[in-house]
Amino acid sequence: MALVVMKFGGTSVGTTDRIMHVARRLIAAKERGDQVVAVVSAMGDVTDDLLGLAAAISLTPPVREMDMLLATGEQVTIALLAMAIHSLGHEAISFTGAQAGIVSDASHMKARIQEVRADRVMDALAAGRIVIVAGFQGLTPDGEITTLGRGGSDTTAVAVAAGLGADLCEIYTDVDGVYTADPRVEPAARKVETVSYEEMLELAATGARVLQLRAVEFARNHGVVLHVRSSFNDNPGTIVKEADETMEQAIISGVTHDTSEAKVTIRDVPDRPGVAAVVFGRLAEQNVNVDLIIQNVSEAGSTDISFTTPKEDLARAKRTVEAVVTELQAREWQVDEAVAKISLVGAGMKTHPGVAARMFATLAEAGVNLDMISTSSIRISCVVGADQAETAVRALHSAFGLEAAAIVAESSPSGRGAV
Amino acid sequence: MALVVMKFGGTSVGTTDRIMHVARRLIAAKERGDQVVAVVSAMGDVTDDLLGLAAAISLTPPVREMDMLLATGEQVTIALLAMAIHSLGHEAISFTGAQAGIVSDASHMKARIQEVRADRVMDALAAGRIVIVAGFQGLTPDGEITTLGRGGSDTTAVAVAAGLGADLCEIYTDVDGVYTADPRVEPAARKVETVSYEEMLELAATGARVLQLRAVEFARNHGVVLHVRSSFNDNPGTIVKEADETMEQAIISGVTHDTSEAKVTIRDVPDRPGVAAVVFGRLAEQNVNVDLIIQNVSEAGSTDISFTTPKEDLARAKRTVEAVVTELQAREWQVDEAVAKISLVGAGMKTHPGVAARMFATLAEAGVNLDMISTSSIRISCVVGADQAETAVRALHSAFGLEAAAIVAESSPSGRGAV
Repeated sequence: MALVVMKFGGTSVGTTDRIMHVARRLIAAKERGDQVVAVVSAMGDVTDDLLGLAAAISLTPPVREMDMLLATGEQVTIALLAMAIHSLGHEAISFTGAQAGIVSDASHMKARIQEVRADRVMDALAAGRIVIVAGFQGLTPDGEITTLGRGGSDTTAVAVAAGLGADLCEIYTDVDGVYTADPRVEPAARKVETVSYEEMLELAATGARVLQLRAVEFARNHGVVLHVRSSFNDNPGTIVKEADETMEQAIISGVTHDTSEAKVTIRDVPDRPGVAAVVFGRLAEQNVNVDLIIQNVSEAGSTDISFTTPKEDLARAKRTVEAVVTELQAREWQVDEAVAKISLVGAGMKTHPGVAARMFATLAEAGVNLDMISTSSIRISCVVGADQAETAVRALHSAFGLEAAAIVAESSPSGRGAV
Repeated sequence: MALVVMKFGGTSVGTTDRIMHVARRLIAAKERGDQVVAVVSAMGDVTDDLLGLAAAISLTPPVREMDMLLATGEQVTIALLAMAIHSLGHEAISFTGAQAGIVSDASHMKARIQEVRADRVMDALAAGRIVIVAGFQGLTPDGEITTLGRGGSDTTAVAVAAGLGADLCEIYTDVDGVYTADPRVEPAARKVETVSYEEMLELAATGARVLQLRAVEFARNHGVVLHVRSSFNDNPGTIVKEADETMEQAIISGVTHDTSEAKVTIRDVPDRPGVAAVVFGRLAEQNVNVDLIIQNVSEAGSTDISFTTPKEDLARAKRTVEAVVTELQAREWQVDEAVAKISLVGAGMKTHPGVAARMFATLAEAGVNLDMISTSSIRISCVVGADQAETAVRALHSAFGLEAAAIVAESSPSGRGAV
């Protein structure tokens, strides 16, 4: 008998019909002999509807009250799903985040799970019930309701799986798993059978939307094996787990693209020590997230600094940079919103030199101009013009043979694979 | 500095505009120097929308899950109202029933409040905040979410007022207070300034919809003074409190009518001991609420038994009576759904004989036929044909001079008034 945590997102529970469908899937797992815990999101557009109500009242609502409001979305889903299972003749019980023992810190709207006190869930499982837990929410030790931020239901599922010592955490979504590229851009994209936590972290951080970054981090830190799969069919999806000698190390696991960021450049900054610290210190003070940073070689005592930032932070970034340009006596600043970040991710890169060179050559042949380059040990990212993003993805997908079976790297000397 | 609990129903918080209006009213009370606690219901049709979602999934949902679902309605309102107060520059904090310390028994969908642990509310008031509490809901000692049943927000307000030792509990509604009759039926109906708990209980039990019966009982048991008033203006409403020598004892406080019940008659029941016990024992077993009961004088060894029951219980009542007729070998049974219960309520009745006689004479003159009669020490009720209900109300309102200033009864010998 296995203990399985199954997570269903907002689309999968978007209507009462779909909730009935999820109920049948949970019952099928129960009837196979497993102990079953479901973690669910708010129905379809419910969270957006609640945000709309709040916006009609205040443009700057207190975050504590936003959490009070938003937490109702998942509470509706868990109740309806429990009713659906009962209507099919099986026993189920729903728990809010508080009731499921999801203890979080007090950072409203972006709370972090500190602990899962799973006693009530364990008792209900022992009593033979399917347990349904509200995703996305927690309770502080002081009894305050929190939410984990958008996509937090993935993290709830992983945290519950870790707290219960579950055998598997299945993330049901509207795609069949993790792909070598976005299939809407590259029709030849292929589903990946297995991927390591490290690769999944880079994929999630660079544009693959199938799993939330924080959920992958939590899974890695607690050794929770994830299975990302479709809620609309029974096909096997993608397994995310610790790399080991049995896992084939593809040189490249996938190509991602991300058009959600803008590029900001500050021109002719006096090139003296501490300049970068001022720029990025001021941005951090204003809560501006920064992704890639490039500082060009200094010429004649001045340099250019470029960085990318999520477009939702751009208004704050502009105000900050405007002030910084004056403070540092730089020449000017520019914003380019029509950019895309293209990334190649693969654990095999570590032991397989020449990936970067082949990537740059491929993009040059395709006529794609590179604005910025950034690398980690298992990732190479380039910023290109937004209108060249799809060309770049398709050229790289083909050049690295991702449509065929994975190209496997040699094992690293440690015998543990490349990660 | 007074401590005031102010309760607003679903209509008063039905839109974000109305929530802003309620916020301004709470702030005005705070600025007068009072400590302010608001108790609110779900917005307008939200509860009905949630019931619709549940009905799409199951016709017999588990009551525990219904409470999980319905409790979200009030949680949305408290968050939005707190945001509204913040947007107007004042400090507010919302609490779910659980957070406000509303401890209930485990009777889902009709839970009763056992205790109010008001520490968090007191602390927030001491910190100068306006406190907003979700009505209609509680938490069992085991951590289960409950609802108090429809109209339970009135009871929450009274319980919170009792738990806090509040000076006053204001019930804001869509009418100006308690009237001598339903103004839609009798345009000359007059607002009553003060009414005793006992009279209010009889008025609520016989058709006045302005206050929930259980809330009035709770207020009487805990000595909470109620002020029933309009959320749309600043007019004084009706005070409900313990009768004392300073309170004028109107002979008649009001005329109510209620068309929500049906009359069931069992004909020619063998007249032997224990027959009534069988009839009403079986009805109680089937959870059929019974209001008025009349057993006619026996003729030739058999008798007729009539009772009234809420129309929502009628299907169960019919099935039960069908079986009882067979069991007792009665002749037949009949149902009349076109009936109305007309009641005269007044504490002065106790010391003022002849009210019943005048009531019957008035109805006779108006051509209204009486089906059933039932009395308490401060109430006389008659069941009449539904088509004669409005005629009856107007005739009685006029005959007892209710459109003028109240007719005052002599004080009772105890000097404490008639209650």
